[in-house]
Amino acid sequence: MQVVVPIITPFTKDGKVDINALKDHVKRLLELGVDVIFLNGTTGLGPALSKEEKKETLKAVYDVTHKVIFQVGGLNLYDVFELVEYSKEFDILGVASYSPYYFQRLPEKWLVNYFNDIISKSEQDFFLYNYPAATGYDISAKVVGKIHGLKGLKDTTQDLAHTLEYKIVNPNLIVYNGSDSLIYYSLSSLDGTVASFANHSPHIISAMRKLIKEGKREEALKVQMLINMLLDAIRKYGQLSATYYMVEIMLGYKVGYPRPPIYPLTDDEVKMLKSEVEPLKRKLEDIISGIYG
Amino acid sequence: MQVVVPIITPFTKDGKVDINALKDHVKRLLELGVDVIFLNGTTGLGPALSKEEKKETLKAVYDVTHKVIFQVGGLNLYDVFELVEYSKEFDILGVASYSPYYFQRLPEKWLVNYFNDIISKSEQDFFLYNYPAATGYDISAKVVGKIHGLKGLKDTTQDLAHTLEYKIVNPNLIVYNGSDSLIYYSLSSLDGTVASFANHSPHIISAMRKLIKEGKREEALKVQMLINMLLDAIRKYGQLSATYYMVEIMLGYKVGYPRPPIYPLTDDEVKMLKSEVEPLKRKLEDIISGIYG
Amino acid sequence: MQVVVPIITPFTKDGKVDINALKDHVKRLLELGVDVIFLNGTTGLGPALSKEEKKETLKAVYDVTHKVIFQVGGLNLYDVFELVEYSKEFDILGVASYSPYYFQRLPEKWLVNYFNDIISKSEQDFFLYNYPAATGYDISAKVVGKIHGLKGLKDTTQDLAHTLEYKIVNPNLIVYNGSDSLIYYSLSSLDGTVASFANHSPHIISAMRKLIKEGKREEALKVQMLINMLLDAIRKYGQLSATYYMVEIMLGYKVGYPRPPIYPLTDDEVKMLKSEVEPLKRKLEDIISGIYG
Amino acid sequence: MQVVVPIITPFTKDGKVDINALKDHVKRLLELGVDVIFLNGTTGLGPALSKEEKKETLKAVYDVTHKVIFQVGGLNLYDVFELVEYSKEFDILGVASYSPYYFQRLPEKWLVNYFNDIISKSEQDFFLYNYPAATGYDISAKVVGKIHGLKGLKDTTQDLAHTLEYKIVNPNLIVYNGSDSLIYYSLSSLDGTVASFANHSPHIISAMRKLIKEGKREEALKVQMLINMLLDAIRKYGQLSATYYMVEIMLGYKVGYPRPPIYPLTDDEVKMLKSEVEPLKRKLEDIISGIYG
Repeated sequence: MQVVVPIITPFTKDGKVDINALKDHVKRLLELGVDVIFLNGTTGLGPALSKEEKKETLKAVYDVTHKVIFQVGGLNLYDVFELVEYSKEFDILGVASYSPYYFQRLPEKWLVNYFNDIISKSEQDFFLYNYPAATGYDISAKVVGKIHGLKGLKDTTQDLAHTLEYKIVNPNLIVYNGSDSLIYYSLSSLDGTVASFANHSPHIISAMRKLIKEGKREEALKVQMLINMLLDAIRKYGQLSATYYMVEIMLGYKVGYPRPPIYPLTDDEVKMLKSEVEPLKRKLEDIISGIYG
Repeated sequence: MQVVVPIITPFTKDGKVDINALKDHVKRLLELGVDVIFLNGTTGLGPALSKEEKKETLKAVYDVTHKVIFQVGGLNLYDVFELVEYSKEFDILGVASYSPYYFQRLPEKWLVNYFNDIISKSEQDFFLYNYPAATGYDISAKVVGKIHGLKGLKDTTQDLAHTLEYKIVNPNLIVYNGSDSLIYYSLSSLDGTVASFANHSPHIISAMRKLIKEGKREEALKVQMLINMLLDAIRKYGQLSATYYMVEIMLGYKVGYPRPPIYPLTDDEVKMLKSEVEPLKRKLEDIISGIYG
Repeated sequence: MQVVVPIITPFTKDGKVDINALKDHVKRLLELGVDVIFLNGTTGLGPALSKEEKKETLKAVYDVTHKVIFQVGGLNLYDVFELVEYSKEFDILGVASYSPYYFQRLPEKWLVNYFNDIISKSEQDFFLYNYPAATGYDISAKVVGKIHGLKGLKDTTQDLAHTLEYKIVNPNLIVYNGSDSLIYYSLSSLDGTVASFANHSPHIISAMRKLIKEGKREEALKVQMLINMLLDAIRKYGQLSATYYMVEIMLGYKVGYPRPPIYPLTDDEVKMLKSEVEPLKRKLEDIISGIYG
Repeated sequence: MQVVVPIITPFTKDGKVDINALKDHVKRLLELGVDVIFLNGTTGLGPALSKEEKKETLKAVYDVTHKVIFQVGGLNLYDVFELVEYSKEFDILGVASYSPYYFQRLPEKWLVNYFNDIISKSEQDFFLYNYPAATGYDISAKVVGKIHGLKGLKDTTQDLAHTLEYKIVNPNLIVYNGSDSLIYYSLSSLDGTVASFANHSPHIISAMRKLIKEGKREEALKVQMLINMLLDAIRKYGQLSATYYMVEIMLGYKVGYPRPPIYPLTDDEVKMLKSEVEPLKRKLEDIISGIYG
């Protein structure tokens, strides 16, 4: 029942990675119950980071914790290899990669090669990151059978039967689902959740996990429903950007900016987001204080 | 009735851009009737090129021709701005960009901002490159109305009514369709075609254009049907890679390799491709010699 | 260059087929240049008609013309056979059928069986009606190769390369495209169009055909663009219902009502539709009078 | 934690409803733990049944049980009204309807009208049946808010967050998910499952429900995984037809045939299905005997 956070990458106003903000954020999330940092994922704007920036974030986060999965995927396999090589200096949980994206109709054979090539170069455990809506490719349980040396898998789909399929094919795989609106189900039926939502509300997920462990299914489900209402509000403003502002709203500290084309919210948008979120936040805080109180 | 080639980027076996192969290829295509070079497009593996590589290819191609549209799009707007700045030193036809990709649910406002921001920094004419199947975003005629300062547009969809819509909204736009299987229609009802197929068969497209100009609709359509049969064969092996090998099959010279995860074809695959393509090639050569003879 | 109309089925206010309205409408369309009546198609609300109603419409239309293609498809093959049997009494152009719909994941084999079974029972020429967006099944050129005894095909997709594929596989097939927004292309590169638009604007399509025959490509294309603007207006109100009201707006006579769940337009909607359509109608009338004058 | 079966409609070899087979099947399923009969659903080939056949099946099943939800949806609202009227003679759990299907781009207003019109005519509780993959329309939680007088809802999607949304909008709704591959989740977090799988394996679902009630989450999940493996085997042959044969394989009695275009399986297919299913069946029987033993 692990909580993995695909951590945001904080930027300064002019688009540089804000290393200190990143470190502080990681520290805080670990204190609030997060188990693992998933680095350079989608929420971390991984596909928008340069090779150098990816190295930089690993180095920074590693100062704080070794509980890191380092996402290295990209459209230039030589760059990916360089990141894999770089990872060898670090004692972390593993390396991860999404599939190639953008390009249409890549033969399945190439996708399989891509993952096998990365794994063969790596000395770390390997986690496959499946996100068909973003990449255009579903690395399904059937395809995964052709990839050798997988430790685990993050499946970002809304279909839990799809995620479960990996367990059917290989019960030893560590399997996470990556959807914020399915955290309850991921925690209670898989190895855990990779939740963008953990960037600003790790305490809420921790509380839900406690409820599940205590067998309080209905209460846990009620928390998920409130999370989904929050998500509805957040998505209106562009989730990838709003997540940065949610950190201040939920946790009380500033964590920097996204980088265009993930545009920062305007002041008005932040205000509106806040006013939509506040009543839900209060309800969740009531539930949480009930749990621990 | 322009023929625009989204030129391949030739790589060496170890993944470096092969500048000389690129220059030679451009020269040859211009001799065979290509009007414009579209640089760093999808076929050119644009999303897989670094900022530096994109500069390098522009510099190289500019030595051969100024008839260039320089595609600069990407997921880091500061990098895109740097390429726009770089383009100012070159007297070319224009700058182009696809929309952001990979990231899901970007608000329409951000997409509009993205294009307007690029245009505001640029001193070149601007061409929008719409490719919804790859990016996940359709910058439709309605959205295009919010983008200011467009010179033209490349629409990579199979729906000609969709492409035509841009002309309805703004008759002054230069509008190309980017589908190989619709070249006939693009040439005869739009401002031209952006055809990956022109990388290896520019002479065939030139011949088709001649037929259209002479009012020989049925013959032109027959060429398109043969092209579509060729595409069927090519796609089986992964079109993005097979295009490199088609240059040798159709034009007789080697042009280098793709870069993984666009994997090179195996020798066996090249052989099979060749044997499938040869009979169609001969039919097309017969038609062409009939046209010019 | 045939113009086929997928004729609407006029209903009375309480949902009975209005036979006289249907006959009068057919007569009028034939006078205005329509070549063939496609009966019980999508626009005719075919999937919403009972077996008895389908017989009734055939009998009625047959009194006016023998240029009829009788669509018989449905989810009960025994009913379909009964309609095929019934068709034997009529000297018409042929029988047609769409594929099964609604049901998901039908094996391709069943789809092939379905068409082959119908053809084997029929003494009429057979036209396959492919409409993947409605049925969920694409009876593509590859699948069509397994169906024996096809005379022709109506392909309702936006992708002309898809439609052309049937001609590549079998040049003897009569091939229509069924999209209103592609009439120009269907007339000029296929055997014709099956155009819902011909229910209210057959004279406009006839005029466009004249332009194409005279080699006036640009003018014909301008008509298509105006048609597409009209379609934009019509679709806002629900095209399947608006088509009934467009008959009065464009041709000046009432033709009855649709049947819920294809709800009639409200009076306000009819007014708004009319006011949006009028300026486009005038532009088209100017073009037409220029053509014939 | 209800188990609802969307009951198959048994046909004779020549396509007549086999009333006795239907009655016997209903009796058997109730004995094995099924709570409710969902009549004329997708698995029951509802969209392929005539108005008369739908009446006939209600009458037959009503002889056995009053725990019936009577699905009446269709593309002719007057026919639907007739079925609603007919239902008034029966003391059943309620009436249900899917949305209109096949027809594209129906305005949301019409869909809302459709359901409201049915509800206004009915004296029974009303259950909405949402199946976007089949109908093309998602009657989402937002749309449902415009429909007045809903008692409950069957959501056939793979996305549990989508299903949960109805509960968020209206906690009093009875909400089922209709996916066989999500039965575990439906039972443990919703009001129950509507499972086609219950046609041949009601005892397996009953056993799983027992496990869930006893808090044996992991064991229950293991049953779901075996179910999903069974589904994989079944789907290969066309699930809508294979379900009929699965009754004999799992429960030991013949239940009749489907009706084309849902073609019966060939003898060879039945044999292959059986041999694929047998080992999974044995594993499940072992688990079940462990549970009750």
